Amino acid sequence: MARRKKIYEGKAKILYEGPEPGTLVQYFKDDATAFNAEKKATIEGKGVLNNRLSEYFMTGLNAIGVPTHFIKRINMREQLIRAVEIIPLEIIVRNFAAGSMAKRLGLEEGAALPRPIVEFSYKDDKLGDPLVPEEYIIAFGWASQQDMDDIVALALRVNDFLSGVMYGVGIKLVDFKIEIGRVYDGDYMRLVVADEISPDSCRLWDIKTGQKLDKDVFRRDLGNLTDAYTEVARRLGVLPSNVTHATKPTLIN
Amino acid sequence: MARRKKIYEGKAKILYEGPEPGTLVQYFKDDATAFNAEKKATIEGKGVLNNRLSEYFMTGLNAIGVPTHFIKRINMREQLIRAVEIIPLEIIVRNFAAGSMAKRLGLEEGAALPRPIVEFSYKDDKLGDPLVPEEYIIAFGWASQQDMDDIVALALRVNDFLSGVMYGVGIKLVDFKIEIGRVYDGDYMRLVVADEISPDSCRLWDIKTGQKLDKDVFRRDLGNLTDAYTEVARRLGVLPSNVTHATKPTLIN
Ligand SMILES: Nc1ncnc2c1ncn2[C@@H]1O[C@H](COP(=O)(O)OP(=O)(O)OP(=O)(O)O)[C@@H](O)[C@H]1O
Ligand SMILES: Nc1ncnc2c1ncn2[C@@H]1O[C@H](COP(=O)(O)OP(=O)(O)OP(=O)(O)O)[C@@H](O)[C@H]1O
Ligand SMILES: [Mg+2]
Ligand SMILES: [Mg+2]
Repeated sequence: MARRKKIYEGKAKILYEGPEPGTLVQYFKDDATAFNAEKKATIEGKGVLNNRLSEYFMTGLNAIGVPTHFIKRINMREQLIRAVEIIPLEIIVRNFAAGSMAKRLGLEEGAALPRPIVEFSYKDDKLGDPLVPEEYIIAFGWASQQDMDDIVALALRVNDFLSGVMYGVGIKLVDFKIEIGRVYDGDYMRLVVADEISPDSCRLWDIKTGQKLDKDVFRRDLGNLTDAYTEVARRLGVLPSNVTHATKPTLIN
Repeated sequence: MARRKKIYEGKAKILYEGPEPGTLVQYFKDDATAFNAEKKATIEGKGVLNNRLSEYFMTGLNAIGVPTHFIKRINMREQLIRAVEIIPLEIIVRNFAAGSMAKRLGLEEGAALPRPIVEFSYKDDKLGDPLVPEEYIIAFGWASQQDMDDIVALALRVNDFLSGVMYGVGIKLVDFKIEIGRVYDGDYMRLVVADEISPDSCRLWDIKTGQKLDKDVFRRDLGNLTDAYTEVARRLGVLPSNVTHATKPTLIN
């Protein structure tokens, strides 16, 4: 069997060459990192859950006409995606203050914001993904003004949809991060949601209890991360409803 | 006890004067009508379910910054709302062909649309709420071009959010109708979502089975309407999960 060519290995995922030109295989690892990789662990089952959940959210977005890189899931840990030219930004949408924003502005975690806020970090691990004003992005040519307008509109649509998905199952979407990339259909360029959407990249709080169901469980040592992600998956019907604790989650097809 | 003043009695709801100026009490009746009131019935429990579900959806919209008329639920059948100046339009958003659109264009029910389509009917029962082009609306002064741009933007946000809510619980949002009204804070005019959002005003199909969970059950004699609405409420956690059949649903607050 010919070995697939590895394109990139990141902290949470590996990209392999895909079966067709313009495609990639995205492999979800069990590795978790936080604080720019100062904290690390392997968490059994995380990759399986994130593969399945990212499939679920991307499929939902495709269905409402928000284009994403997702093509299809291949197996428990892999999905087929369109290769995109990643815009080197972390696009963060915040509905409530938390994490770095709460710290930077001296706000309480969970404080309501006047409206959803879209912010950008420059994707550069060596610099620690610094927050940047839109002005920098355009001046340095990482994206054009037209791109930025489209990115903000896309990010807000993702926010409305994901807020709804979470609201339907009793979860508050506090914030999330996406990446966006360019795909070319001949001369025509489109922006699509790429990377992943999962509890690794969202803050998700139970509406009633405030319990955290996201990567903060790992960042702040609040318990078993797989249990938290399994709970999200279970509520969304991505796992059979009789699975409540699973380090090796049983997946429905 | 002083009797409240009735402001308007419609087919599904009654409006009473509210406790404060600028407020109304919206009472949800059990009456169901279809085909411009040619078909009529009383369906025990429908009003209770719609009151609770409209509260649920409007609360969710308020939380993501889509303004609505909803202030608070008062009891099983009544909610307190802001009095608005209703724009005389039914604003319909369609994700899949169904109902009058499927008929008008000879499309199969459930056929995918190229993108979500926002359309407008002129609210006039005597005329049967005729479909109207945006051009008519502006020419006759029912709304301005600026209003219409804002209405379309609001309607699409409601669509993204509600699509998400439904997707999270395994339901496809085929289409829905909203009404929008004007409220004045001093000189400042805002548009807000009014009337109701409920299975009376949406088409909701189970994603897996295609089962209809909306007013078409009544329109087309497909079974017990209250059972269908109870199923929607149950999935959204608006009813306790052990209630599967309820003509008089037990409500959790
Ligand atoms: N559709 C896509 N096409 C090309 N690259 C993609 C696509 N989706 C995601 N990527 C990139 O794949 C990599 C995913 O790996 P991972 O998330 O593990 O990286 P990471 O350690 O977080 O590092 P990075 O800072 O690059 O994100 C990221 O660099 C991401 O930008
Ligand atoms: N916040 C509000 N302020 C004022 N009027 C409202 C508000 N929300 C809804 N309405 C109006 O209240 C009435 C609700 O009654 P109902 O839905 O039973 O009427 P209907 O029989 O459908 O007739 P209509 O064609 O007027 O909707 C509608 O006329 C609707 O436009
Ligand atoms: Mg990454
Ligand atoms: Mg009405």
